[in-house]
Amino acid sequence: MLILGIDPGTAIMGYGLIEKNGQKLSPVTYSCWRTPSDLPMPDRLRMLYESLEDFLGEYSPDVMAVEELFFNRNTTTAITVGQARGVILLSAARRNIEVSEYTPLQVKQAVVGYGKADKKQIQYMVKAILSLQETPKPDDTADALAIAICHAHSMGRRINGGMFK
Amino acid sequence: MLILGIDPGTAIMGYGLIEKNGQKLSPVTYSCWRTPSDLPMPDRLRMLYESLEDFLGEYSPDVMAVEELFFNRNTTTAITVGQARGVILLSAARRNIEVSEYTPLQVKQAVVGYGKADKKQIQYMVKAILSLQETPKPDDTADALAIAICHAHSMGRRINGGMFK
Repeated sequence: MLILGIDPGTAIMGYGLIEKNGQKLSPVTYSCWRTPSDLPMPDRLRMLYESLEDFLGEYSPDVMAVEELFFNRNTTTAITVGQARGVILLSAARRNIEVSEYTPLQVKQAVVGYGKADKKQIQYMVKAILSLQETPKPDDTADALAIAICHAHSMGRRINGGMFK
Repeated sequence: MLILGIDPGTAIMGYGLIEKNGQKLSPVTYSCWRTPSDLPMPDRLRMLYESLEDFLGEYSPDVMAVEELFFNRNTTTAITVGQARGVILLSAARRNIEVSEYTPLQVKQAVVGYGKADKKQIQYMVKAILSLQETPKPDDTADALAIAICHAHSMGRRINGGMFK
């Protein structure tokens, strides 16, 4: 099973594709898409959408996992991340790919084992679980891999085509 | 010139297409797209995207105008509206349609003449300006027409392909 984790953002969108084979998890490919800050927002969203479309066409993941947005951020950030997230959910729906979402707490618990883990601990565990040579960079890519691992370790809250509507 | 105003939302997305001919504004078509509340969010976003795509294909507006999101709402609303807005901006970018955005204050000033106008006053003026028989319903449709009128009356802040980057 191919699991694609995505960390939504308009400036940097991290992605991490892993394969789950029984209990074994292996990395397939991971990196991030960046958009120029001087480009208008509609064009940045289009770049992200097209990058994601190409990626989905090439790798055909079975499932996508995204971080559930949390509610203690400021609304400006929420709108921007919401826009990026809209593009991701749209891509998934147009290809009938199931999407699950996880809270940051769930991701930390699944990857490190406790909910107060910091970024460094998450990155360390992502590297160990996937037997990577290097810590994935930037943080957005490591986060995307962590979300994919979280999905592999749990069933999560499906937000389409599944038990959660 | 054909101006499409859109009031973003995932449950109801209002739209209003008007034609500007010199100083004269006439309605072309206006209504709203609704998505079922029991449908998963990715599917709702897909429905909205596909409705908008069909609409843009049929009417080829020259420009789109959306309300700028304001920052005093709660973050949950901001995320939801952000997702809907992401889909709108993406559609515009994929068809190279210019997008302008206006604050609620700018819309009120342009349509009613002062910034503290209430919904009823806006609806009354939308009806009068476009010589409509009836007040457009629901509110989302009236708001979308108001945004289109606001664009017709000003140049606004273009958020792609224009003076604002």
